[in-house]
Amino acid sequence: MKTEKISELTTNRLSVYLRCLNELAAAGVETISSQAMAEQFNLNSAQIRKDLAYFGEFGVRGVGYYVEELRQHLMKILGLTEKHRVAIVGLGNLGMALANYQGFNQHSFNIVALFDADPAKVGSRVRSGLEIQGSENLKEIIKRENINIVIITVPAHAAEQVLEQVTEAGVRAVLNFAPVHLHPKPGVKVKTVDLTTSLESLSYFLANPSADGINVDYRDFLRYEADSNGAGR
Amino acid sequence: MKTEKISELTTNRLSVYLRCLNELAAAGVETISSQAMAEQFNLNSAQIRKDLAYFGEFGVRGVGYYVEELRQHLMKILGLTEKHRVAIVGLGNLGMALANYQGFNQHSFNIVALFDADPAKVGSRVRSGLEIQGSENLKEIIKRENINIVIITVPAHAAEQVLEQVTEAGVRAVLNFAPVHLHPKPGVKVKTVDLTTSLESLSYFLANPSADGINVDYRDFLRYEADSNGAGR
Repeated sequence: MKTEKISELTTNRLSVYLRCLNELAAAGVETISSQAMAEQFNLNSAQIRKDLAYFGEFGVRGVGYYVEELRQHLMKILGLTEKHRVAIVGLGNLGMALANYQGFNQHSFNIVALFDADPAKVGSRVRSGLEIQGSENLKEIIKRENINIVIITVPAHAAEQVLEQVTEAGVRAVLNFAPVHLHPKPGVKVKTVDLTTSLESLSYFLANPSADGINVDYRDFLRYEADSNGAGR
Repeated sequence: MKTEKISELTTNRLSVYLRCLNELAAAGVETISSQAMAEQFNLNSAQIRKDLAYFGEFGVRGVGYYVEELRQHLMKILGLTEKHRVAIVGLGNLGMALANYQGFNQHSFNIVALFDADPAKVGSRVRSGLEIQGSENLKEIIKRENINIVIITVPAHAAEQVLEQVTEAGVRAVLNFAPVHLHPKPGVKVKTVDLTTSLESLSYFLANPSADGINVDYRDFLRYEADSNGAGR
């Protein structure tokens, strides 16, 4: 029995392919070769074939991929034929933007609850009409509403506690925007999107212009290595 | 001469360490061991020592790290002693949220210009008082204002063109939120943050619950492999 890790990079690319196929389907395209798809969307055709081969043989020699069929397959692989029920915890600037964001695939992700600890925010509504609720009933509401994905947009110091609460309520998938490394229980997946870190990695790149990717010349650091495993620091 | 790639994961961790050190400095802590830092912030002490050893020997045996000194070093390594001048292109929900976002390190990142192609938005102001400008003068304003980082929050179909324009204006670092894989010229770094992809990778995890990380059982797919390198698809 051969089991192998499918990297998050692979699933990320499947998401991209799905988005391309959605566009093609909307434009009435019925079949497409990996080459044509690669050209139209600036992708790598060998990579497309390799990624899709992981999950089965979708192409037909001389024809290419059937757009609608492959689209359905990718939706299924990515679990998007399920409707996911999403809650946002923390309605600051970013949480509010996400609550109003039109970019999510709305067939698959429904934002159904909003929570904030600040009494001044509780009771107000976002554009969709959804009302912000207090955090004290978080667990009950998550269970009652069958929420299975939680977006955390609270300040860093509060994030781990929110993760614990939603985990206790049965949530196993969390998208975290708090700038902190969280520690999920086994079987719970946390994906962290850290905007400050993203900006700082750009800053690092600008500060190290010799890097085409990100390269650092080690010469200056070698002299320190002898002592670098010392304990007690 | 030994040159090695410093992964983005490493620079991301340096960002996290810096954030911890900022908190420690604000709390008046003067020295800290890698162990204490790891415990307080849920990090790995061996990883801390290894990451910091890349860039020099900052610890002192029996004392630990000098918080302020290490903080300054990390700021310098990450290029944060420079003030970066940032523009946001595309003032939809997300662009607007980022324009109003208080979470960025404001000593290092100044949002100094906002652009949108929609005439209805041009002339209106965000909370900071900054005015949204039309896209027709994008290049001139980027040059004049010495903008060195651009955040792209336009729709997918417009993103590549915006990248070209800002590249022509001399920008070499771009944070892209458009759900599309962009193709920067050599010497230009694009970091893409794709919210839909993040949600879809959570969806994949929920659809494949056997995965502790993300594992897929290959048995069902092996029969396809013989033909998976076929060309012409």
